[in-house]
Amino acid sequence: MIESLNKAFCALPGVGNKTAQRFVYHLLERNREGGMSLAKALVDVMEHVKHCTSCRTLSEKTLCHICASEVRDASQLCVVETPTNIHAIEQSGVYKGKYFVLSGYLSPIDGIGASELGLDELEQKLTNQNIKEIILATNATVEGEVTAHYIASMAKQFDIQITRIAHGIPIGGELEYTDINTIAHALLGRKKYD
Amino acid sequence: MIESLNKAFCALPGVGNKTAQRFVYHLLERNREGGMSLAKALVDVMEHVKHCTSCRTLSEKTLCHICASEVRDASQLCVVETPTNIHAIEQSGVYKGKYFVLSGYLSPIDGIGASELGLDELEQKLTNQNIKEIILATNATVEGEVTAHYIASMAKQFDIQITRIAHGIPIGGELEYTDINTIAHALLGRKKYD
Ligand SMILES: [Zn+2]
Ligand SMILES: [Zn+2]
Repeated sequence: MIESLNKAFCALPGVGNKTAQRFVYHLLERNREGGMSLAKALVDVMEHVKHCTSCRTLSEKTLCHICASEVRDASQLCVVETPTNIHAIEQSGVYKGKYFVLSGYLSPIDGIGASELGLDELEQKLTNQNIKEIILATNATVEGEVTAHYIASMAKQFDIQITRIAHGIPIGGELEYTDINTIAHALLGRKKYD
Repeated sequence: MIESLNKAFCALPGVGNKTAQRFVYHLLERNREGGMSLAKALVDVMEHVKHCTSCRTLSEKTLCHICASEVRDASQLCVVETPTNIHAIEQSGVYKGKYFVLSGYLSPIDGIGASELGLDELEQKLTNQNIKEIILATNATVEGEVTAHYIASMAKQFDIQITRIAHGIPIGGELEYTDINTIAHALLGRKKYD
């Protein structure tokens, strides 16, 4: 039984057997209530958190709070790889537009092509909505650049500005691990995609 | 809701907000089933794992499998600070006796005195059972040494050998993070406590 819990913890990223063991013993010896709360929170979230039908981020409601907001500028659309990236950008405090979340990055080898990534939906958005600028905020990795390039090519058919988040972000780094000042800088210094 | 799960994960030792966030998104985006399994395993373990009535380690049964075993040498009693330490010693493969698990180490400041530690039970064991050797395998920390010293003083009233696990284990280190060869060495090289 303890072994099953150990294994279940190992499903978490970066958690090996030793760490899992520490988690289990800590909860059992010092915080059983914490263990039960964690179980309850897990069930709640796994069962109720879906994807926003508009931007595809994780959300308990059909529309996330950013998509539902009337004060956010709907003419700007910032494209990111993951919901955590939205969180990082929001913390920088300099962006007031909307978002679109890809399912990661283009990776034909793993079977993730344009439609798996959500680019069909993105194209529809650009067709139907009054978007004036698309900000490509995929990661500064090779995959992120390739993905940004692909989206830029697709977006060229529309009369909108295509910008790329500035490379204040260290090359090879990921948004998720960048401090918010650098993110703010990178957003404010964004340049036209060419 | 996601925030509650974040917080619940932060109850785990060494898990901060950033790590918790990675856990949550990983489960939501890639392994919801894993999240549900973790929840179920948590409830199972928190509800059903108690303490062995004989050695006080964590166990689903009244008697743990080591206490219940008839092939283990009941004349040897190895005293450790935590259930994980039993696991570490078992992995070294050189010990065939029984165990007694303290509730950590003596720490009068935190209100952990002899009886909170389980020393009353230990004394009863030494009184009632036919134990020939008590092996003090508390950690090689200041607290572990003080605890070992205290138990040795108490055990002197009985006609038993009192030994201390050898200091092959780095001073200041904890059993839990020691490789099994060092643990084997330390056990085999144990010396009479004086
Ligand atoms: Zn949304
Ligand atoms: Zn036992």
